Amino acid sequence: MSCVAITGKTYVEEPLQCHNISVVKNKDFHLVQVKGTWKRKTGNNCNKNLKGQVSDAKIYESTTEQGTSWTVVSPIIFTYKVIETLGLLDPSNDTLLLGHIRDPQQQEALRSSISSKPLRRFVVMDQTVYNLYGCQLTDYFEARNVLYRILPLPTTEENKSMELVMKIVEEVHKFSLDRRTEPIIAIGGGVCLDIVGLAASLYRRRTPYIRVPTTLLSYVDASVGAKTGVNFANCKNKLGGYIPPVAAFLDRSFIQTVSRRHISNGLAEMLKMALMKHRGLFELLETHGQFLLDSKFQSDSGLQGDNKDAASVSTRVAIETMIEELAPNLWEDDLDRLVDFGHLISPELEMKVLPSLLHGEAVNIDMSYMVYVARERGLMTEEEKLRIIGCMVGLELPVWHQDVTLALVQHSLCERLKHSAGLVRMPLPIGLGHAEIFNDTGDESLYRAFEKWCDELRPQ
Amino acid sequence: MSCVAITGKTYVEEPLQCHNISVVKNKDFHLVQVKGTWKRKTGNNCNKNLKGQVSDAKIYESTTEQGTSWTVVSPIIFTYKVIETLGLLDPSNDTLLLGHIRDPQQQEALRSSISSKPLRRFVVMDQTVYNLYGCQLTDYFEARNVLYRILPLPTTEENKSMELVMKIVEEVHKFSLDRRTEPIIAIGGGVCLDIVGLAASLYRRRTPYIRVPTTLLSYVDASVGAKTGVNFANCKNKLGGYIPPVAAFLDRSFIQTVSRRHISNGLAEMLKMALMKHRGLFELLETHGQFLLDSKFQSDSGLQGDNKDAASVSTRVAIETMIEELAPNLWEDDLDRLVDFGHLISPELEMKVLPSLLHGEAVNIDMSYMVYVARERGLMTEEEKLRIIGCMVGLELPVWHQDVTLALVQHSLCERLKHSAGLVRMPLPIGLGHAEIFNDTGDESLYRAFEKWCDELRPQ
Ligand SMILES: NC(=O)c1ccc[n+]([C@@H]2O[C@H](COP(=O)([O-])OP(=O)(O)OC[C@H]3O[C@@H](n4cnc5c(N)ncnc54)[C@H](O)[C@@H]3O)[C@@H](O)[C@H]2O)c1
Ligand SMILES: NC(=O)c1ccc[n+]([C@@H]2O[C@H](COP(=O)([O-])OP(=O)(O)OC[C@H]3O[C@@H](n4cnc5c(N)ncnc54)[C@H](O)[C@@H]3O)[C@@H](O)[C@H]2O)c1
Ligand SMILES: [Zn+2]
Ligand SMILES: [Zn+2]
Repeated sequence: MSCVAITGKTYVEEPLQCHNISVVKNKDFHLVQVKGTWKRKTGNNCNKNLKGQVSDAKIYESTTEQGTSWTVVSPIIFTYKVIETLGLLDPSNDTLLLGHIRDPQQQEALRSSISSKPLRRFVVMDQTVYNLYGCQLTDYFEARNVLYRILPLPTTEENKSMELVMKIVEEVHKFSLDRRTEPIIAIGGGVCLDIVGLAASLYRRRTPYIRVPTTLLSYVDASVGAKTGVNFANCKNKLGGYIPPVAAFLDRSFIQTVSRRHISNGLAEMLKMALMKHRGLFELLETHGQFLLDSKFQSDSGLQGDNKDAASVSTRVAIETMIEELAPNLWEDDLDRLVDFGHLISPELEMKVLPSLLHGEAVNIDMSYMVYVARERGLMTEEEKLRIIGCMVGLELPVWHQDVTLALVQHSLCERLKHSAGLVRMPLPIGLGHAEIFNDTGDESLYRAFEKWCDELRPQ
Repeated sequence: MSCVAITGKTYVEEPLQCHNISVVKNKDFHLVQVKGTWKRKTGNNCNKNLKGQVSDAKIYESTTEQGTSWTVVSPIIFTYKVIETLGLLDPSNDTLLLGHIRDPQQQEALRSSISSKPLRRFVVMDQTVYNLYGCQLTDYFEARNVLYRILPLPTTEENKSMELVMKIVEEVHKFSLDRRTEPIIAIGGGVCLDIVGLAASLYRRRTPYIRVPTTLLSYVDASVGAKTGVNFANCKNKLGGYIPPVAAFLDRSFIQTVSRRHISNGLAEMLKMALMKHRGLFELLETHGQFLLDSKFQSDSGLQGDNKDAASVSTRVAIETMIEELAPNLWEDDLDRLVDFGHLISPELEMKVLPSLLHGEAVNIDMSYMVYVARERGLMTEEEKLRIIGCMVGLELPVWHQDVTLALVQHSLCERLKHSAGLVRMPLPIGLGHAEIFNDTGDESLYRAFEKWCDELRPQ
């Protein structure tokens, strides 16, 4: 509303009237806290009277003949730490117990009180990981005087269900966990992290939890974002949420016991980030892929220093690029997501051939086809295409699958269209390390690419 | 880092080194989106190069000898509408179908396409409410050409569990709901709204839902905030979340079939807001309490106009004060909450005497005792105290209970201390319509108040 002075008089311009809705009054409120009480203040009042704490939340009130309506806008700030460390289970390493605490003073205070007042920790661990690292964890807790309960669980894809979530909250409840100071710790692959994350998010409407990924896939993917979930009605991750952990602790040494196939599996998600965003990472995987598979991402040079090795550099870049894409879109409100590359056709494929393909393998087959689409559209040269396929083969990932038919491709894109608000939002690589999101599927490139892809990559 | 020029040379001041942690490098990043790709930019880069969309999220990177750690800060903005309406189930009223849509143009577009392209809606309804209003709802949907599925459920406090949540997601899944455009609608009391809210929050990691409260308690309380939940392990609302509905539609006419006792029950939460924040509301309840009980909040004057009646004014003020307190603290991160008044001792009491007291009744007994504490501390006059107790009696709410013992009071405050980060955070009324939060419980006032309270209010 603005005031206009005409011939000495002041006229007040009325706000525009919408004739359908007949708005009588609109008011926008800030919220200011004075002595523990929140008070609504209209814009001008607020500036004059900033004695109290001002909230980021706003209330928009609109009164019509039908009654009043309020629109509440309230931002919630999620903060979480992702910490690289070596020797997470070494008793001299504080990270597992204190790494999630953001305030250095508070961290220091806790550190010095541990000996007199034991910490309490509830841990859920993948059964296989428990068999391999359980003793080390027990030793760690004993050495640090922690009152602990470790719950080993068979957190497999088949068990990834609400039942395991309920089992966890039951045990957490028995442990009589203090939701303010005792984060639940999850140690395992992506399945374990996803289940525990959901259990923690539900318990007391939100209990902090910590992710310790032990597979390469979960190291570079599940540990960085906010997603939790379990399977339901034969659908992957149909129930879940977007509550990030307070912290993820990344220790590459767990990967030494992961099978070669599961390392390839994780490399597929790293290659995804490389193709979408980082040429350097692509070249690193192209050159050192076999070395990474052979050495299982173990190296002695530590995480710092000049002689950084392929394992530390490639995981670091994968994580940095992943955080870059996830942080601004934590709840996936923006449907244009580069990290969806490789995830358009693969869900259908994964479901169809279950359990013969691992997630990363299905993703790689999807990416391989999409590289052919990009080539057909002139987004990359023949040489670049061949380098990418060569890199995939070097990472020991499948590049073609007989169950990917044109019908499956079309059906997948239709499904995508349906769940992505009417646009297909197809990320495609442009050369090496760049990408864009495309919405046109009408041309012939999908068909031509499919024929070329089969011609060139189908085993004879 | 700042530059200081001394005798022609430029020295760069190093950032402070923390000797314990040996920080090597700290960097703060903004995130800027260019052609679909998010890029980290340090503070200065960002200002120069604002070509892309800048995210509210931030990444703080810190590299030490132990490795790199990233802190991700990502705000998620929740927006929801609370709409007063009359005749929600009148086929001429659009609210139920379109009220949740914020963009007026989109709303208009949908309105005009309804006749050609039917909307689809999945509704969960409290069984009792279904018996009373199910036909009206069916008629509404038929008249509006909606493809609907109504799921009546016995949403009682005893059934408020994860099993009912799973039942709902199963049926939602069968309905093959489109998560982008088809919000789940919950119609019932607080139990129904809480269960459906949780089911919707979990389905596909977040499916929009709409709350239609049909009891006075849920009208003024559950409908305004973000909380969802079910009982677990004999504890109230032990599992749940803070995902607000897209909209809450408030129609007082549902209250006409609510029992007198359940209306008193809701009045207790209204009185809570009155005592904490709004003297006018207190006086209204004091003067018109009996009328509100007799008329069950029904009145003919509509929601607008000069002759506003007690029902519309009192519910509106209750909602406005409630939104004021909830919007800035949607996820209860701030533990100092005025809306906790009446909720310090009542949880223990409620559990102890279950099911003999309704929630609001237990809350009122708690408030009644706290009024005596406030009086003992000189926060109100004797006359004010008597007016409050008189008002409670007028609202037909219990003001005393034999199971509230000093031991129960002390135990409750200890529990509170434990779960509120070491402070008791006790809201106490100051006179009529004001309040503050107190953290001292060391003095004698709790004991003296208890004796007075029993002396004066225990039935002879
Ligand atoms: N939340 C997210 O953002 C996100 C991201 C990607 C994937 N995921 C989920 O992660 C899951 C896949 O993760 P995954 O590949 O880690 O699978 P997984 O958790 O099933 O682990 C794979 C196998 O490795 C074993 N294992 C784990 N750590 C080991 C170790 N250190 N040594 C030896 N064996 C070990 C496990 O017992 C299991 O048999 C899927 O369910 C997927 O939905 C989630
Ligand atoms: N989410 C929140 O912020 C919030 C706030 C307050 C309370 N709650 C929860 O709400 C629940 C209490 O809510 P409530 O008091 O509405 O209880 P309720 O849902 O159990 O309803 C009370 C009774 O009234 C019946 N009923 C409902 N609407 C009716 C109508 N129009 N006519 C006749 N009968 C009707 C129900 O069938 C039930 O028997 C508790 O579980 C509490 O935890 C949640
Ligand atoms: Zn993936
Ligand atoms: Zn309450």
